[in-house]
Amino acid sequence: MQFNSVLESLDIYEAGKPIELVVREYGINPKDVVKLASNENPFGCSPKVQAKIAEILPKMALYPDDSMYELKEALAAKYSVNTRQVIIGAGSDQIIEFAVHAKLGRGQKVLMNGVTFAMYEIYAKHVGATILKTTSREHDLGQFLALYKEHKPEMIFICTPNNPTGDALDKTQLYDFLDQIDANTLVVVDGAYMEYTAYADPKKAVMVDDITSRYANVLYLGTFSKAYGLGGMRVGYGIGARNIIEALYKIRPPFNITTLSLQAAIEALKDEAFVLMSLKNNFEEIERYYDFAKEVGFEAIPSYTNFVTLLLPSTQSSKKVAQTLLEKGMIVRDLTGYGLNAIRVTIGTLEQNSQFFERFMQYCR
Amino acid sequence: MQFNSVLESLDIYEAGKPIELVVREYGINPKDVVKLASNENPFGCSPKVQAKIAEILPKMALYPDDSMYELKEALAAKYSVNTRQVIIGAGSDQIIEFAVHAKLGRGQKVLMNGVTFAMYEIYAKHVGATILKTTSREHDLGQFLALYKEHKPEMIFICTPNNPTGDALDKTQLYDFLDQIDANTLVVVDGAYMEYTAYADPKKAVMVDDITSRYANVLYLGTFSKAYGLGGMRVGYGIGARNIIEALYKIRPPFNITTLSLQAAIEALKDEAFVLMSLKNNFEEIERYYDFAKEVGFEAIPSYTNFVTLLLPSTQSSKKVAQTLLEKGMIVRDLTGYGLNAIRVTIGTLEQNSQFFERFMQYCR
Repeated sequence: MQFNSVLESLDIYEAGKPIELVVREYGINPKDVVKLASNENPFGCSPKVQAKIAEILPKMALYPDDSMYELKEALAAKYSVNTRQVIIGAGSDQIIEFAVHAKLGRGQKVLMNGVTFAMYEIYAKHVGATILKTTSREHDLGQFLALYKEHKPEMIFICTPNNPTGDALDKTQLYDFLDQIDANTLVVVDGAYMEYTAYADPKKAVMVDDITSRYANVLYLGTFSKAYGLGGMRVGYGIGARNIIEALYKIRPPFNITTLSLQAAIEALKDEAFVLMSLKNNFEEIERYYDFAKEVGFEAIPSYTNFVTLLLPSTQSSKKVAQTLLEKGMIVRDLTGYGLNAIRVTIGTLEQNSQFFERFMQYCR
Repeated sequence: MQFNSVLESLDIYEAGKPIELVVREYGINPKDVVKLASNENPFGCSPKVQAKIAEILPKMALYPDDSMYELKEALAAKYSVNTRQVIIGAGSDQIIEFAVHAKLGRGQKVLMNGVTFAMYEIYAKHVGATILKTTSREHDLGQFLALYKEHKPEMIFICTPNNPTGDALDKTQLYDFLDQIDANTLVVVDGAYMEYTAYADPKKAVMVDDITSRYANVLYLGTFSKAYGLGGMRVGYGIGARNIIEALYKIRPPFNITTLSLQAAIEALKDEAFVLMSLKNNFEEIERYYDFAKEVGFEAIPSYTNFVTLLLPSTQSSKKVAQTLLEKGMIVRDLTGYGLNAIRVTIGTLEQNSQFFERFMQYCR
């Protein structure tokens, strides 16, 4: 059977390895598996969220309130915007998908960083768009601007802090860049890990209301998958000018998040103390990774997120290291697919991080 | 800002009204609201599913096993197919989306029934496809064949039983039709309500393994949202030849269902007794709707699903009837948007159905 020709440029996406697979394939006791591969919150989610979901389990049969009224109200209040500037997605991933489909057609251009979140490129390929990339590992806005001026792309992705490198832009730098982009270019500012960055360095904390009040062409993305600890529930959001949100709404399928996910996100927003505890632990524990990197002679990219990227020396293959650790029940992310000889490790609990250091020293030295 | 021109043909989809909205807008006590609008299972989901989900709430933080190994194994066993012939979606809706994007490009053609599930047309518009429709209310395969021969569409949707009319095709009729379609035309057979049909009339029970072994160009869709009572969890599936499933996989975003949804679907498949109880109640209660229709002089389309479509006489507007009932806390689906002066009512529990008859007689006569 013949399919849409855009499929020729697409591969089947290989997601991070789940604990179930390691148990299945390597016969490891589930209790001995440590997953530091998908930047999940090592403390899980707020116990208050769990209690609320336990209460509403019979609602699994009922479609969610597709207006998502309560969640949108809460997000609008948090960010000082109007509810009509907010759209909810099955993870911020889905907002990326909506934005690409709403803005781009075959042959139109999209600009992104050389090393950045893989889904930007994948969704762009879905619509047959032309992909432009900087040569930079961390975001280089100078290069972005030069490519923008040369190619006039219809869409730009900025990921700050950047996944999978962990670096973040100063907000003044970002605003200076945005000032130079024309009103018809849609700029997506993906702040999936912004809670971490804002905690670590206010200078890098991109303010959503600043963005939306200053730029009619910018779509900000946030998620409940990281700091709020709801990776398994698939809830993210996009915030921007009303005409952008309306365009995305035309692409949004009805009931795009589950009834339990909707309620979980609403409850999660009420427990900022849980988030704060998670952030505090994260930046205490991250220091141990920097010390570890120094000890073993790796370069660690300074991180404003809940993960750290360790660049390996050319004598050691990140693919092999990740595979060795996997077979020992320690799941980390190999970045070979991103063109880096590096592994990305999620900052876990004190115990999980100790496990990483121990197993690395035991099996990879 | 300029967007993709396909957006010009798209409206924002208005989903069925949730209970929350009726409570909010009409100040009705949530306990007095009866929702018979979205074809949810009135018994909720299996208590065994609820018990399992209660156990795994801490997993809300963890991304799901994206291989969906266990669920695909269970479905493959149920339908006697290979796991590589199975794909999971956020509702069967999402499989429709994958199929349209994988098969159709701008200007290509898709054929469907005159009155049928709205999302076929909406997703086709996303990619700028040309939509062909029969003039029939219930599926008329003669008209389908004539239009197929005239226009040679790249894709065909068959919805059996059909939503929102409730009628179902005899399987021999369907197979005779499929025999005449060329191998490069993708035919989607949407069996979202097939459990009900199979219970009511084996002659209309389309067998998935028959379909997949006989037709390399047919994609069968099923869902956990109806008979399995998991409408709020958004899990559906597509089954077909491996090359079709592989094409859809290229369009599938990673982690497209939640961790809890995946587990809920796995558990739901284990409790067929719950499904059987739901089916039995459904076809006992549906008789009361037929009696009611006779009593008030409406035509009820004989239904092979968990809903019944009542065609109103021209003296009564379905839009008004649905609105009157809504304001009294009884949510049903007006079908004006489908070109019918009719309401679609989900078969509820004995009490819910009695409520419908009572409130209708009180407020709409």
